[in-house]
Amino acid sequence: MGFKKVVFLLAVLLTFQLAEAQSRRIIAIPDINGYKTLKCDFHMHTVFSDGTVWPTVRVEEAWAEGLDAISITDHIEYRPHSKDVVADHNRSFEIASPLARQLDILLVRGAEITRSMPPGHLNALFISNANLLEREDVNDAIKEARDQGAFLLWNHPGWKAQQPDTTLWFEEHTYLLNNNMLHGIEVYNASEYYPEAIDWANEKKLTMFANSDVHGPMDVNDGHRPLTLVFAKSRTEGGIKEALFSGRTAVYFNNTLMGKSALLEPLFFSSLKYSDAPLRLTNGTSKVVNITNNSDVDYELVLVQPGVGLDAPESLTLKAHHVTPLNLNGNSEEIAKTGEINLYYSVKNMFTASDENLIVTLSFKNL
Amino acid sequence: MGFKKVVFLLAVLLTFQLAEAQSRRIIAIPDINGYKTLKCDFHMHTVFSDGTVWPTVRVEEAWAEGLDAISITDHIEYRPHSKDVVADHNRSFEIASPLARQLDILLVRGAEITRSMPPGHLNALFISNANLLEREDVNDAIKEARDQGAFLLWNHPGWKAQQPDTTLWFEEHTYLLNNNMLHGIEVYNASEYYPEAIDWANEKKLTMFANSDVHGPMDVNDGHRPLTLVFAKSRTEGGIKEALFSGRTAVYFNNTLMGKSALLEPLFFSSLKYSDAPLRLTNGTSKVVNITNNSDVDYELVLVQPGVGLDAPESLTLKAHHVTPLNLNGNSEEIAKTGEINLYYSVKNMFTASDENLIVTLSFKNL
Amino acid sequence: MGFKKVVFLLAVLLTFQLAEAQSRRIIAIPDINGYKTLKCDFHMHTVFSDGTVWPTVRVEEAWAEGLDAISITDHIEYRPHSKDVVADHNRSFEIASPLARQLDILLVRGAEITRSMPPGHLNALFISNANLLEREDVNDAIKEARDQGAFLLWNHPGWKAQQPDTTLWFEEHTYLLNNNMLHGIEVYNASEYYPEAIDWANEKKLTMFANSDVHGPMDVNDGHRPLTLVFAKSRTEGGIKEALFSGRTAVYFNNTLMGKSALLEPLFFSSLKYSDAPLRLTNGTSKVVNITNNSDVDYELVLVQPGVGLDAPESLTLKAHHVTPLNLNGNSEEIAKTGEINLYYSVKNMFTASDENLIVTLSFKNL
Amino acid sequence: MGFKKVVFLLAVLLTFQLAEAQSRRIIAIPDINGYKTLKCDFHMHTVFSDGTVWPTVRVEEAWAEGLDAISITDHIEYRPHSKDVVADHNRSFEIASPLARQLDILLVRGAEITRSMPPGHLNALFISNANLLEREDVNDAIKEARDQGAFLLWNHPGWKAQQPDTTLWFEEHTYLLNNNMLHGIEVYNASEYYPEAIDWANEKKLTMFANSDVHGPMDVNDGHRPLTLVFAKSRTEGGIKEALFSGRTAVYFNNTLMGKSALLEPLFFSSLKYSDAPLRLTNGTSKVVNITNNSDVDYELVLVQPGVGLDAPESLTLKAHHVTPLNLNGNSEEIAKTGEINLYYSVKNMFTASDENLIVTLSFKNL
Repeated sequence: MGFKKVVFLLAVLLTFQLAEAQSRRIIAIPDINGYKTLKCDFHMHTVFSDGTVWPTVRVEEAWAEGLDAISITDHIEYRPHSKDVVADHNRSFEIASPLARQLDILLVRGAEITRSMPPGHLNALFISNANLLEREDVNDAIKEARDQGAFLLWNHPGWKAQQPDTTLWFEEHTYLLNNNMLHGIEVYNASEYYPEAIDWANEKKLTMFANSDVHGPMDVNDGHRPLTLVFAKSRTEGGIKEALFSGRTAVYFNNTLMGKSALLEPLFFSSLKYSDAPLRLTNGTSKVVNITNNSDVDYELVLVQPGVGLDAPESLTLKAHHVTPLNLNGNSEEIAKTGEINLYYSVKNMFTASDENLIVTLSFKNL
Repeated sequence: MGFKKVVFLLAVLLTFQLAEAQSRRIIAIPDINGYKTLKCDFHMHTVFSDGTVWPTVRVEEAWAEGLDAISITDHIEYRPHSKDVVADHNRSFEIASPLARQLDILLVRGAEITRSMPPGHLNALFISNANLLEREDVNDAIKEARDQGAFLLWNHPGWKAQQPDTTLWFEEHTYLLNNNMLHGIEVYNASEYYPEAIDWANEKKLTMFANSDVHGPMDVNDGHRPLTLVFAKSRTEGGIKEALFSGRTAVYFNNTLMGKSALLEPLFFSSLKYSDAPLRLTNGTSKVVNITNNSDVDYELVLVQPGVGLDAPESLTLKAHHVTPLNLNGNSEEIAKTGEINLYYSVKNMFTASDENLIVTLSFKNL
Repeated sequence: MGFKKVVFLLAVLLTFQLAEAQSRRIIAIPDINGYKTLKCDFHMHTVFSDGTVWPTVRVEEAWAEGLDAISITDHIEYRPHSKDVVADHNRSFEIASPLARQLDILLVRGAEITRSMPPGHLNALFISNANLLEREDVNDAIKEARDQGAFLLWNHPGWKAQQPDTTLWFEEHTYLLNNNMLHGIEVYNASEYYPEAIDWANEKKLTMFANSDVHGPMDVNDGHRPLTLVFAKSRTEGGIKEALFSGRTAVYFNNTLMGKSALLEPLFFSSLKYSDAPLRLTNGTSKVVNITNNSDVDYELVLVQPGVGLDAPESLTLKAHHVTPLNLNGNSEEIAKTGEINLYYSVKNMFTASDENLIVTLSFKNL
Repeated sequence: MGFKKVVFLLAVLLTFQLAEAQSRRIIAIPDINGYKTLKCDFHMHTVFSDGTVWPTVRVEEAWAEGLDAISITDHIEYRPHSKDVVADHNRSFEIASPLARQLDILLVRGAEITRSMPPGHLNALFISNANLLEREDVNDAIKEARDQGAFLLWNHPGWKAQQPDTTLWFEEHTYLLNNNMLHGIEVYNASEYYPEAIDWANEKKLTMFANSDVHGPMDVNDGHRPLTLVFAKSRTEGGIKEALFSGRTAVYFNNTLMGKSALLEPLFFSSLKYSDAPLRLTNGTSKVVNITNNSDVDYELVLVQPGVGLDAPESLTLKAHHVTPLNLNGNSEEIAKTGEINLYYSVKNMFTASDENLIVTLSFKNL
């Protein structure tokens, strides 16, 4: 038997070895307002830049963790393995693409334009040809991406290696913003949070991101990687693109959610289920509302103003996938005549700005 | 300030300390056939017999673990703490009752008639007065329970301390059965499984139970205690009683389910969700059905006969709260003309008899 | 067979059921300075006051968790179960005592004198007769304890139910202190930390405690209960008593240690193991010291002043039961001539006062 | 600033990103008989054959998991990524080597000769040049390895893809064995156990291995990867080579140990610590020996013959890093005169042959 034939047979045999049974986690974050809530990570690397895994690993990880969409964003300008890994800038996408289709992971073609600050590193998403981004002048590279229809986001704006002490908005970023060359910003990268970024996002209408920027194998332990939640009209690449350009995202890391209150508030309430039967609370009696939290998020509530005519708990954690009783005690004669009871809670792990928590109103019919 | 008044104030103060925020787990086992699937444990002890916890602890544990109903079944004949704990046989129920009402745990009044074998130990559930069960003759005690309308079950029929080598059905049990004095049997107790019991249950129309028989604090770690699943018309004490007398239970321990196929089969299928779109499988192509298992049970499937015209996996674990892909590959020209694809799997952790697994048919439209 | 005989046989049989195999955790906190480091909890309740477990449960829990000594400190003045549990104040100790001896848990006889603030609640340890502490006047009760040779500690000085907004030292406490009626104070109770208490302990020479004050079954999950570490000349009741009166304790809760630096510093260094071979660090080279942490504590270090002639990590976590590399880089020509390298780190989870962390010096021979 | 210079600066900056603080697990398996017990894995792949990680990942994983030595054994004949990854057969070793030196992981140069059965796949360890193993005839390849001084082991002898129903020893293997071309065999690979292999190892003096054969990122969850324990005179590559050629290994997977009793027995006893004080057991009394298990292995013991003059537990689990009490009860007058008590236990998770457990004798002085 010739050597070639042996090798062919081996290839057949070895595929058996790889076909191991597996299953996919479910990330329980609800859909809202008629949008699909897609769990996405738009920043990661492979051996085709300075990462240490093959592109298919990124798809397998995303599938196992329950993600909907990823983008492999290998550096254009930094390829330390190029002595051994010889391929152009589109190759990691091409390798990962068939597996992504098979596993129904949306794979967005992307690349990281990797320069010193300013403007720092930018991810170009939804490009058609990464090779054309290899340009000496950074603005030429960004323009090329823009002209390919790319969505451009500023990565880790406060990354200590580039900005040791501060997170600064440079004139260059204003230039990019004014020329349709900057559409989004990372509020969270890997394990770093940039408070300035969420406020810039609000002020300058930039779309917010939380991405893993993972280089080695993903290690999520019992938690979850940083995720960009995309509120899309459909679970398609087009749906994601439209949502990103429309600013409909929230960031999700370490049991914390950040974004616009118009998105966070329905996310909070869609996570919960409780009876809407009237409480009929009266002075001196107590009632319990059992709140079921079907999401993965532990919501941490702190009362922002005392209840009128009743005592409500000053703090309350609505634990993920648990039922938490809310105990209400009538403390005045007025309560028996109140038609609707409103409780105002600040959600300590939901932020609408760097110094602003989401305030939610828990409303219960009383009569 | 007098001593009495101090004590009164302390009582008020100390209740604050006990009011700690908590939350309740959700046991994800679906409702079936229009019945509520209630998670129940009908065998446990307190300091009022030979247990080591106060009756309220049993209610708190049940609430935290997500149970619907329990019965405290203190021994009538064995009360080693009686020097210090001075009360009648109804007292543990009375103490636990207000908290059960408050936390919406159904508390069934019960007691354990505790004799040497035969007939061994029997739990009497739904009794009205446990004190009347204190009789010298065991049959008098059981008759009293029956006449109170009790459901009677034989506990741990193969308990090694009473039956070191065997699990035996005695004439006494036939007598009880024939005189409406025996209605159910424990198939599982604490950490012991009795294969004979499931077969007797099938043969003699006894209702099957899995109970914790817990004496100390319940320790469930990451798992769950042994549970009797009751398929009830309503989540009420009456609903449970009707279901028990009608034999509508399944036993659930260590990721294993046992019961009648008419109950286990819908339990299996109600746990799962997958698309019913036609597969359109053809020779040489492959299709994936993504099966979402929304229950707490990992279902372990083994193919019992090869697919006709297609290859299906020989074994497959449908992991709890995960999505598992079922990969099907067409291997004959006939498959393209097959209107419905049926796959026959044995569920290795679902039993209908001591030596019989539940067989399920996974059906998919193909055209 | 008579009823009595049946019951006797049952008692024999049932003991089998209770004899389940178990094993005991090891709390890895090292001995120091020739003292045994005993892991102790001196505050807990049973059904004999307002707890909900039988006294033996406290011994079993302590054994399973790896503790050396406990004290059951049922309230003298507050016994809500007294209608059913009829016994004097020494009874919980008497019941727990044989099992403690069998399992080699040191059981200190104690009681909680339970009054409104001031002086609040005090635990009396090493008493000889708890019944004599039932006195109308609080000072009479405390004096009785003192005269029995008791060690007296002030429990939860900032407990919100008694001191809603503040933690205050009252004149009454000065009186107790001056009359040998107060020797220690809880710095941590259940899940509350009192910063004032550690500073009072330092200032007034009070012994520091962290206790569980557990009422229901102990639930430690993956962590550990609050512990008072006692540095004793011997693992005996006398050894503990001498250490408490000498102030040789540290408190340990949530991966945090508090105490005198003379005790915390050896605790830190006895937890670690690393080579004492000379580093021979020179300019432009780097050396690694592998530090093995054999304790249960994750030590979190922050550099308090830059290394001289070398770069050392600004922060470093010495993870429990792991080896952590300390990377040192020479950055000046001087370093090659330096005989000893000293690095000054603040240990963020070790406190010597409410606002002072332990500072440790990591010393390495260089030549 | 030129493009080259930008790239250089980026390289500097990006290394910061990779320098994340980490720590290394400790695998607690004791040294025995004056040998170091080295934790090794001699079978794994990278992108340089059909793996999906960069070679440095294998070193990082080994370091984090607490291993001492690994061998990267990329296939000679099967390199599906060769279109993109262009390098010779020594390249994965060369890339991993500097990091291995820095992290003090012993990296053995190896390769997998990958042929159809017989002889199947063989790992060649301690080779000097993998490129020379690329030969059309399998025996030429193996001879080349032998002549480079290689240790040769037969991988996954019962791998289902090659041997669907059986595990067979072929004439070819006898030829290899007789010509110094076969020295070891995998008893365990990835998640498969081959009972035939342990018996062949005993019969034909082959060294036993358990290896991971990992292709993607290593995922050990809370457990450990399959390991070959090497009992070496020194923690050096030479030490390992001498031990392998001398047959001093044991295999360790899923809390199971296999090997020669001369190695397993001291491994068992070196894991344990208990007092050697005389028991002074007499008729009708009971004594407890507290056994501390300082290893990672839960040892599961079953009594193989009744104690003489005493009752000892029929089964006992010595839980890892816990203290387990062994309860002994004197049951005859003779026991008081017995100088030494010997208990014979079978260790259910230690095997010396496919159907033989290690038997250990627990000896205690009695007088």
